[in-house]
Amino acid sequence: MTSVAVVGGGIIGLAIAWRLQERGADVVVLDDGEPGAWYVAAGMLAPGGEASHEEPELIRLLAAGNERWPAFAAELGVDVGYDDTGTLSLAMTADDLAAAARDWTRQKLPLLRPSELREREPALSPRVRAGVYSPAERQVDPRRVVAALRDRLADRIVSKRIVDLSEVAAPTVIVAAGCGTAALTGLPIRPVKGQVLRLRGEPGLLRHVLEAAVDGRHVYVVPRADGEIVVGATQEERTDRTVTAGGVHELLRAAIELVPDLAECALVETVAGHRPGTPDNAPLLGRHDERVIVAAGHFRNGVLLAPITADLIAGLVLDEVADPLLHHFTPGRF
Amino acid sequence: MTSVAVVGGGIIGLAIAWRLQERGADVVVLDDGEPGAWYVAAGMLAPGGEASHEEPELIRLLAAGNERWPAFAAELGVDVGYDDTGTLSLAMTADDLAAAARDWTRQKLPLLRPSELREREPALSPRVRAGVYSPAERQVDPRRVVAALRDRLADRIVSKRIVDLSEVAAPTVIVAAGCGTAALTGLPIRPVKGQVLRLRGEPGLLRHVLEAAVDGRHVYVVPRADGEIVVGATQEERTDRTVTAGGVHELLRAAIELVPDLAECALVETVAGHRPGTPDNAPLLGRHDERVIVAAGHFRNGVLLAPITADLIAGLVLDEVADPLLHHFTPGRF
Repeated sequence: MTSVAVVGGGIIGLAIAWRLQERGADVVVLDDGEPGAWYVAAGMLAPGGEASHEEPELIRLLAAGNERWPAFAAELGVDVGYDDTGTLSLAMTADDLAAAARDWTRQKLPLLRPSELREREPALSPRVRAGVYSPAERQVDPRRVVAALRDRLADRIVSKRIVDLSEVAAPTVIVAAGCGTAALTGLPIRPVKGQVLRLRGEPGLLRHVLEAAVDGRHVYVVPRADGEIVVGATQEERTDRTVTAGGVHELLRAAIELVPDLAECALVETVAGHRPGTPDNAPLLGRHDERVIVAAGHFRNGVLLAPITADLIAGLVLDEVADPLLHHFTPGRF
Repeated sequence: MTSVAVVGGGIIGLAIAWRLQERGADVVVLDDGEPGAWYVAAGMLAPGGEASHEEPELIRLLAAGNERWPAFAAELGVDVGYDDTGTLSLAMTADDLAAAARDWTRQKLPLLRPSELREREPALSPRVRAGVYSPAERQVDPRRVVAALRDRLADRIVSKRIVDLSEVAAPTVIVAAGCGTAALTGLPIRPVKGQVLRLRGEPGLLRHVLEAAVDGRHVYVVPRADGEIVVGATQEERTDRTVTAGGVHELLRAAIELVPDLAECALVETVAGHRPGTPDNAPLLGRHDERVIVAAGHFRNGVLLAPITADLIAGLVLDEVADPLLHHFTPGRF
């Protein structure tokens, strides 16, 4: 039986370990207990919005990742907040609209007038100029996904902080340590700080994921069925985890301008974390050396890409073939 | 030895109990463990700003309260954050200035130009129009004061929630239960919700207490020596303790417009509490019936009035004479 150690118990490491376990491998996850980017992430599954400025290979990977989510969520067998209501992308000012319209045209999404938008989402501000509806951009609750994966893996998760891969005895090692991958492998992954808020209101205030440009500032608002509403995110080239007055202020300002009734919601959590960025902001997926495989650097797309990353890496380990989708994302490409 | 039970272990109840103990009474404090208004309060000792719209008797009481603070803080014998740097009252827009100027003229405080203000407080926004310096408006840290009083009273504090005064056996009962006083006595005290933020930055960013009108919104910014900066407060006729997105947003907006560098500070705490308001927003101080004395309803002035309330109530209990300062504040006046 193939014996594999996964370094990193975030959403990527756990998804890989679960897929390996299902395919019969003897797997162990070594986790340092620090919550990763999944803990902060809103869980938008947004291949289109993310993809529009990206290279075609990444667009293909993101789209393939999105396609795997319904089956992955179903297989987990518990409610992980997978919701396919879809996303409204919105523009507040004329300038916001001019900037967004290019993307929307490229995606061939029909422009919706304010009245059509408010028919879908009555709580939207009357100031919203225009928007589009993306049915394929869905959401999931990353904290529930991680809880479900931990349940499935149970006694295969070991609480251990690895500082050097020589500490890991297994014949095959998968490094899925997010930002921590840099120190373990020397690969160019940098932390990109994001601050995120969690609000709580009456369930039903909003139905769609909203992502918007509000006076030039990008904001997203992700409503869960239970009344939680995630508002994010700053994007800062900083290594600290400080929640700042300015970060919270900017997020609240944009969110409340977009949906005025959010002002009445409880502010229940403020948190900062780090997206694992790479020089081209595409992930590092594949063989690092004879023993070590890397699956890290997913930047803003870790949740979206968790299921397909699990499939691709499990295939690489167990079938010893690299899927063509992986070719563009070799860890050694820089 | 006079035996007294104080119902309520907030800043008023503890101050009274300490004074009674010092004067030789056998005192016990019955406290339900719920943090009172002191826990939320910034600790501005502001007799002038508060007083300008008040009746002359309350203005006198507030001024007398302020005079007692230096000695009270010194007697506590530990650092309670008493700081006499003073307060800058500020106006941001022409409308803010017009509204504030009436109060400032009444208080005979000389108007300071923006350059003079920024000489005192270099971090102020260049948008600040004008202000005044009030050397008599100081600050203290209410959480440190309560900790010091608890230390002094130690085993005289009993953890017990009183729902009816018949549960209290002592021959003399002092009700200092803040908003809870209404249910115990039937007196007209209502909760006035306030949301308050605590930021943390480099010590020395600000020196003075700032209180300001920013585009019609009142905000205060209270910098402690250790880098904590308290920003407050909303004023809402609501009974819930929810910290709302709208409340936090308004406080951050006003504070950051006043002092742009606050945006870089960590947002470390958001909290809501209730000021005990009365029909005339002056406290209820004095005899309720033969056995029961009330000291409650201090509204926004509980911290400022704690030392003088302690002296006046201790005098009423032990000397059996009501100081003339008390005459206007009888609990039965409504």
